Amino acid sequence: MRAVILRQGDLVVDTVPDPKPGAGQVLVKTLACGICGSDLHAHKHGHRMVDVSRRVGGREPMDLGRDVIFGHEFCAEVLDHGPGTARTLKPGTRVCSVPVVVTEQGPRTVGYSNDFPGGFAEQMVLSEPLLIEVPNGLSAEHAALTEPLAVGIHAVEKAAVKGDEVPLVIGCGPVGLAVIAALKLKKLHPIIAADFSPARRKLAEQLGADIVVDPARTSPYTTWMDKAALGGPAPAVGGPVWTPPQYKPALVFECVGVPGVLQKIFEGVPRGARVVVVGVCMEVDQVEPMFGITKELNLQFVLGYTPEEFARALRLIAEGAVDAASLITGKVGVDGVKAAFEQLGNPERHTKILVEPWR
Amino acid sequence: MRAVILRQGDLVVDTVPDPKPGAGQVLVKTLACGICGSDLHAHKHGHRMVDVSRRVGGREPMDLGRDVIFGHEFCAEVLDHGPGTARTLKPGTRVCSVPVVVTEQGPRTVGYSNDFPGGFAEQMVLSEPLLIEVPNGLSAEHAALTEPLAVGIHAVEKAAVKGDEVPLVIGCGPVGLAVIAALKLKKLHPIIAADFSPARRKLAEQLGADIVVDPARTSPYTTWMDKAALGGPAPAVGGPVWTPPQYKPALVFECVGVPGVLQKIFEGVPRGARVVVVGVCMEVDQVEPMFGITKELNLQFVLGYTPEEFARALRLIAEGAVDAASLITGKVGVDGVKAAFEQLGNPERHTKILVEPWR
Repeated sequence: MRAVILRQGDLVVDTVPDPKPGAGQVLVKTLACGICGSDLHAHKHGHRMVDVSRRVGGREPMDLGRDVIFGHEFCAEVLDHGPGTARTLKPGTRVCSVPVVVTEQGPRTVGYSNDFPGGFAEQMVLSEPLLIEVPNGLSAEHAALTEPLAVGIHAVEKAAVKGDEVPLVIGCGPVGLAVIAALKLKKLHPIIAADFSPARRKLAEQLGADIVVDPARTSPYTTWMDKAALGGPAPAVGGPVWTPPQYKPALVFECVGVPGVLQKIFEGVPRGARVVVVGVCMEVDQVEPMFGITKELNLQFVLGYTPEEFARALRLIAEGAVDAASLITGKVGVDGVKAAFEQLGNPERHTKILVEPWR
Repeated sequence: MRAVILRQGDLVVDTVPDPKPGAGQVLVKTLACGICGSDLHAHKHGHRMVDVSRRVGGREPMDLGRDVIFGHEFCAEVLDHGPGTARTLKPGTRVCSVPVVVTEQGPRTVGYSNDFPGGFAEQMVLSEPLLIEVPNGLSAEHAALTEPLAVGIHAVEKAAVKGDEVPLVIGCGPVGLAVIAALKLKKLHPIIAADFSPARRKLAEQLGADIVVDPARTSPYTTWMDKAALGGPAPAVGGPVWTPPQYKPALVFECVGVPGVLQKIFEGVPRGARVVVVGVCMEVDQVEPMFGITKELNLQFVLGYTPEEFARALRLIAEGAVDAASLITGKVGVDGVKAAFEQLGNPERHTKILVEPWR
C-alpha cells in the first residue's frame, strides 16, 4: 500500500507491505485522517518526543531509526476481519476508533508506532472492540474530526465546570477550537477566546466564542476582567482584610503549548483562577511559582480522552451539535502531505488538513 | 524600643521610636515571635522578594532602603488602645493576630513593612478587630506557633480532602510539619513524609507521620506506591486499554520551595496525582510540562490562610490537639536573632527559634 512515511526525519511517500490483522483485529481502509499539531512536532522534534515519552514512562515509544506512519485522527472503512473477531461490523461499514490497538504485549499507539501504521497510509489494522460505527450517514471527513473534538470535550470534563465560571481560551488552533465547542455545549457564557490570527478568531466565533480578542491589541485578561466583574462595591477603606471576590470564577484553557505561555497566564489571570493545560508543550518551560502561589492558582494538566468521551464526540458531530466542518481547510492525497505540513504553519490559511490516502 | 532591624541588608539591633496606635489600633508588647523561613529568605534575597511582590501585585512591598522590622508569627500582650477602639480586651490580655494592620490606605503587612514593626521588636501596633484572645492559659510561646500551623491547615483545606487519599509530604521543615499535623487532624492514613534530616524525620513522626523516608536512601514515591497499592490484578494482557486505577489517590504536598523540587515531584508521582504547592519558591523554576500532561496532574498553589483558619489553629494548639511545643528548638532575645538566622540553616539543630524581645 502507499503511505507517507517518517524515514530518517524526512516525510517520504513509498509503498509498504499491507498490514495483516492479528487476533481481535480488523483491517480497514483509511477514508480520511487529520494532520495534528503533534504530527508537526513529531516531524520536527521526533527525538525530543521519544526522549520525553521514554522518561515519562507509559507506552513503548517509537524507534525513529525505523519507519513510522503518522495519523491518529481517522475515519476508516472495514475491509476484513482477523482471527478471533466477532465480525459484527460488515465490510464497507464506516468506523472511527481511538488510535490504539490492543496486542498480546499490551496496548499500542496507532500513528506513533513502528508496527501499526496510522491514517497517512491506505490501510490500517484496528482493534475490533474499540471500533465505533459512524452514525447518521455522516461523511468520513467530518467523522475524522472526532479525535480532535474529543480532546476538547475531555479538557472541559476535567475542568469540572460548576456553571458560574467565565471561560477564557488562550489559542484558537484545533485544540482551542475544540475546547470552545465543548464549552458551548456546557452553556458557559460569555466564552472569551484569544488568538493573534484573524482567521482563527473568526473560526472561534463560528465554534461558539462570544468574544474574541487579538492579544496584539488588547489583553485577553483585561477583556476577561471587564466581562467577569461582579460589579459589587470596591473594598471599603479600612474595611475587612479578606474582601469578597470581585470577579466570577476564572476558568482558563491553555491551548498553545509552547514555552512561556504558562508564565504569561500566571501573570495575567486573576487570583483563584483555574487553569486547564491542554496545549502539549514538549520542551522545558520556565515559570515563576510566586505568581501561582500569590494568586493561589490551580493547574489541571490534561491529555487525550476516555473511550466514552471519544464516542460522545462522534455522536455530537453526527447530530450536528458541533460545527466540525468549519475546521477543514484542505484535503490532500499522500503526495500532498509534505507540503501540507509546511502550509499548516500559516494559521491564516489552514486549520485542519485531511489526508485521503485513497486519492 | 529595642528591635532587630533589617537595615541596608544587614540585621542590626537598635533603638527605634515606640509605635503609636492609630484609629482602630492597639499597642501591644511582643511576648514571643517565631523566625520564619520567609524571614531568612527576605534577609538574603530581599530585593528578589520585593521585585516579585511588585510584579505579582497586591500589597505595597517594603522599601529596602528604609528600616524593616521582621516578625509575623507572634503572640503579644495588650498595652494600650488607640482612638476609636472598643477596648474589649483589657491591658494585660494575651492575643494573637493575623499579621495585618488595617489602615485608611488599606491593609498593611506586619513584619514586611516600613511602617509597621513586626515581632522582632518590643512593641507592635495591631488592628483591634483582628485580635484573638489566647485561650486556656496557653503559653505565649505555644500561641506564637498559631501562624505556621495555620499555613498547614490552610494547605490541607485547599486540598479538599475526600478521605481516600494517601498523602505524601515532601520536606519536613516548619511548613511540612504543620501540613502533617493538619493531615493527622483529617485522619488520613498512612501519612508518608520525606526529609533528608534525621531530626526533621523524628519531628515528622511526633507531629503525626506514620511513615518517614530518607530520600537519600529510599525514593519517597516507591514507598508511597508500596503503601497506596490497591492490590488488584495487574492489567490483563490484551485487556482493556483504560485500566482501573492501581493506587489510591495521591495527594502530595510540596513543602520545600526551592527550584527543581516541582520537577522531581512531576517525575516521581503516579498518574492523576494532586500536588499542593505550599513551599514558597521565590525564584524562576524549570519544569517539563510533558510530565504533568502525560500524568494529568493537578497542581494547587496555596498561600497563607483565612482568619477563620488562623483562629482554628490557635484553638487547636490551646486544646492540645496539635503538639506545637515540639517544634520549638530555641529562644533568643533581640541580641541573638542574627546568630539564630545562621543557625536555622542546620535542620539537625533547629526547627523553630522564638524571639522574645523583652529578654
